[in-house]
Amino acid sequence: MEGEFAFIARRLRPLATAPGALGLVDDAALLDPRPGMQLVLTKDAMVAGVHFLEGDPPDQIARKLLRVNLSDLAAMGAAPLGYLLALARPRQIEDAWLASFCEGLAADNAEFDISVLGGDTVSTPGPLTLSLTAIGEVPKGDALLRGGARSGDDIWVSGTLGDAALGLAVLQGALEVAEPLRSHLIDRYRLPRPRLTLGEALRGLAHAAIDISDGLLADLGHIVEISAVGAEIRIDLLPLSSPEPAGAQDAALSGGDDYELLFTAVPSRRDAIEGLAARLDLPITRIGQMRTAPGIRVLDAAGAEVHPDRTGWQHF
Amino acid sequence: MEGEFAFIARRLRPLATAPGALGLVDDAALLDPRPGMQLVLTKDAMVAGVHFLEGDPPDQIARKLLRVNLSDLAAMGAAPLGYLLALARPRQIEDAWLASFCEGLAADNAEFDISVLGGDTVSTPGPLTLSLTAIGEVPKGDALLRGGARSGDDIWVSGTLGDAALGLAVLQGALEVAEPLRSHLIDRYRLPRPRLTLGEALRGLAHAAIDISDGLLADLGHIVEISAVGAEIRIDLLPLSSPEPAGAQDAALSGGDDYELLFTAVPSRRDAIEGLAARLDLPITRIGQMRTAPGIRVLDAAGAEVHPDRTGWQHF
Repeated sequence: MEGEFAFIARRLRPLATAPGALGLVDDAALLDPRPGMQLVLTKDAMVAGVHFLEGDPPDQIARKLLRVNLSDLAAMGAAPLGYLLALARPRQIEDAWLASFCEGLAADNAEFDISVLGGDTVSTPGPLTLSLTAIGEVPKGDALLRGGARSGDDIWVSGTLGDAALGLAVLQGALEVAEPLRSHLIDRYRLPRPRLTLGEALRGLAHAAIDISDGLLADLGHIVEISAVGAEIRIDLLPLSSPEPAGAQDAALSGGDDYELLFTAVPSRRDAIEGLAARLDLPITRIGQMRTAPGIRVLDAAGAEVHPDRTGWQHF
Repeated sequence: MEGEFAFIARRLRPLATAPGALGLVDDAALLDPRPGMQLVLTKDAMVAGVHFLEGDPPDQIARKLLRVNLSDLAAMGAAPLGYLLALARPRQIEDAWLASFCEGLAADNAEFDISVLGGDTVSTPGPLTLSLTAIGEVPKGDALLRGGARSGDDIWVSGTLGDAALGLAVLQGALEVAEPLRSHLIDRYRLPRPRLTLGEALRGLAHAAIDISDGLLADLGHIVEISAVGAEIRIDLLPLSSPEPAGAQDAALSGGDDYELLFTAVPSRRDAIEGLAARLDLPITRIGQMRTAPGIRVLDAAGAEVHPDRTGWQHF
């Protein structure tokens, strides 16, 4: 088994392409902020058996870890610069596993034009535990926040919802779905698409934004709470990959891990947002409106209130 | 047991005093770099049973986690701004434990004038696993690096060496030491003193710097390797808290966790460095010189080479 120094030198150093990473040979990394920019910092941790499955492909675990953090940057309208990684490694994690893990990082470094800036690797008697701190930048004052939603705003979501929760259920054997939907759902669970281009384009357009990691109702709940407004959404408008299986709508309401963007904007910007959807070739769907009355109301197509079981997807 | 949101709201939010932390209610934190400054980023992870002892006081675990990161900033000559924290929490960690942990963070936030900027708390079936990303700033181009040492430079260390390794041995029952030395050594193991003021003062004075976390020989080895020079140190000059116990000199050579600064500077700056020691009321001891011949030679008081067992302290 490679020691810590060998692992850093052989696997991580090639990923540390930013000059400020100093080839990972120093105590810390240097970062030169550009004039007029604010830095945006986020940190997410993942534990084997809790946030990913032990048997998941290592390169996809790496990319998911990175992408859930990039998704937080996207929700703030920030462009990513790089990241620091902490890896607590149990004895049974072999060099080949780490090599694949680092290949995943390399692929996403290229895709998102970012660099490893530093980090730490330690041993653990417990499960593989990962933590990543991502750093992005946004023009000063332009960051999208959760607290800016106003009554009357449209509520929009990117992409499709519920896929990741269904994909996880498939992987856990709790759900059977035919191909090609099966592979699509699993891919959506394993490989989030952080909506970075959308996030940047929403600066000055959205009033509030968040990425959907805990589930639509939970994350809309954060906007509602922090913006001190209410929301009304139409369950029949939620964008699904497929009307099948039964439960797809519940997954869209309460399933986590989709990492789509949820944002609000004034109705006068509908054309701009629809133009953005066309330009990015990404569905952006209007699912409701912010209201003055507190809380979230879920309506069916006829406008009648429904009361979904919000905890349904937490059992998977 | 408090859930994640309750823990963040009740315990961590009061520690997030920086405006850019956004009260921890957003996806990420904002940081406004000051003109002319570079940011300095470092990340260290700690695992219960590996990097600290399960029975250590929680507030001291928190402060140690924070301080080992601040020590990395000190070694770069940076002033700290804030940090992001990831905490993977096993079920047996109780609210009272977390309350004490956060009291430790609060104490050090005040001591070092820094703020929580963000982070993540997750559950784990394994041991308590902590990761912290610290952010500091340094005037552009002034950061101290490991690679700047030159042949002929004096080698200096702050404080005393070997204390933390001896303190750990005491805690593990492998070493018996009488009071008050016993408490002093344990305190040195549990509560590093990041040499931030010294690090800042060494900008423009030191050629190379590193903090002693792996042990003097190992960390001097990093400077030697990256600066492509050699070093000669005198074992009788190593600053010890006490000549007792037997093995104190070996601990000073190879024991880790002291978090003192090791740096090199031209001999013409000896007066400046001694003046700095007086001003900071901190011993700074000249222990040798950089040489052109590669590798590290350890000499006794008579100038004869000795060959210490560098791995001696890893058995504790």
